[in-house]
Amino acid sequence: MPINQAIKVIAFDADDTLWDNEPYFRQTEDELCQIMAEYRDVSDFKKYLFGIEMDNMPDYGYGAVAFTMSLIESSIKYSDGKISASDIGRIIELGRKLVRLSATPLAGVAETLKVLHQRSRYQLVVFTKGELLTQENKLKRSGLLPYFDRVFITTDKQPDDYRKVCHEMGIAPEELLMVGNSLRSDIQPALEVGASAIYIPSEVMWQHEIIEHFEHERMFQIVTFSQILDLV
Amino acid sequence: MPINQAIKVIAFDADDTLWDNEPYFRQTEDELCQIMAEYRDVSDFKKYLFGIEMDNMPDYGYGAVAFTMSLIESSIKYSDGKISASDIGRIIELGRKLVRLSATPLAGVAETLKVLHQRSRYQLVVFTKGELLTQENKLKRSGLLPYFDRVFITTDKQPDDYRKVCHEMGIAPEELLMVGNSLRSDIQPALEVGASAIYIPSEVMWQHEIIEHFEHERMFQIVTFSQILDLV
Repeated sequence: MPINQAIKVIAFDADDTLWDNEPYFRQTEDELCQIMAEYRDVSDFKKYLFGIEMDNMPDYGYGAVAFTMSLIESSIKYSDGKISASDIGRIIELGRKLVRLSATPLAGVAETLKVLHQRSRYQLVVFTKGELLTQENKLKRSGLLPYFDRVFITTDKQPDDYRKVCHEMGIAPEELLMVGNSLRSDIQPALEVGASAIYIPSEVMWQHEIIEHFEHERMFQIVTFSQILDLV
Repeated sequence: MPINQAIKVIAFDADDTLWDNEPYFRQTEDELCQIMAEYRDVSDFKKYLFGIEMDNMPDYGYGAVAFTMSLIESSIKYSDGKISASDIGRIIELGRKLVRLSATPLAGVAETLKVLHQRSRYQLVVFTKGELLTQENKLKRSGLLPYFDRVFITTDKQPDDYRKVCHEMGIAPEELLMVGNSLRSDIQPALEVGASAIYIPSEVMWQHEIIEHFEHERMFQIVTFSQILDLV
């Protein structure tokens, strides 16, 4: 079944769809493990950190600053208050590197967006969850901003958030095509509201984002970003 | 000169216009000063903190989580790395209280918004800078959300941000009335783009927001929120 010919807007997820993000978060976790290893056995530290992240989600949401807050809190609690202030200072700097991520576009991303932008057949938008300033800054640094008509940054990507994007773009959900790497945030809720979706799996996934794979007649799976051009 | 009869949208600043915010930030600073006093003389700590906040502004922006990050960083650097992890844990909890602020509406706010909402003469929107989730959560807790047609949360409130709000509401800047407590963020840029503005001074102001007082034919100064009803 080909992609819906009614599509008017293509929405792109940002982190791990337009640029690598998650691998840097995992690397930061590894670096914190090394710091924590000076204080105690760290065999279940990552699990502990994930618990703190989930507890903090309602207050801090998703993003590099939220992650840094959870890193600091975990390091204090997991070390039973033994971690030194200078090591916490190192964690702040690890977090700052994530906040300042260069957001270099993945292979084929800039070229593909350029072609889609020049063809002007679809409106192109970014639809990402996360921290407002962190995401705005990454988009600017990525150099991709000129290709997009609108940027939507939200605290979550539930079906209602997809409906809002459609409403603000003045389209029906059936006229939306969502492109992303997360079945849970990008694909499933888009399909649920009636949109189509292109799924580009990424190598490194945050456990919070992982759900079981599924098939759907309005979902198209590709391997590299430029294959979007074969579909639309 | 009466208020512009062409007004179609009234936009309200949130922090220190709809509810108290800044006094709690100042209180948190005082509490941190008490913690820091265990480590050294704190006579210029607030000045030091403000410097760190300004340095962090391009990365973290405005908001309670950003403030918490700057509190932690300041406490480490100002104590020359001597502050204990458990005291940093206390700072995290001080910050969490700000993130979870009850956002109780100021006197007259709920009643006034209710009247304006029932009259349906204007569209009512929130236009605030800050952290997406922090501001969304405060709005929900305030109980005021049902009175508003739209909520705009941005990383800054420069003239271009006001133009975007007008564009998204489908109005000319002359059809916007901005209500807020900050001459710098709410009043001056609104006037600059051609909108009208109602200025309600708040008692406690963050030094970053303070500019010299001025007069303008499209600016109306009031003392209590309910006086809006005498103007529109």
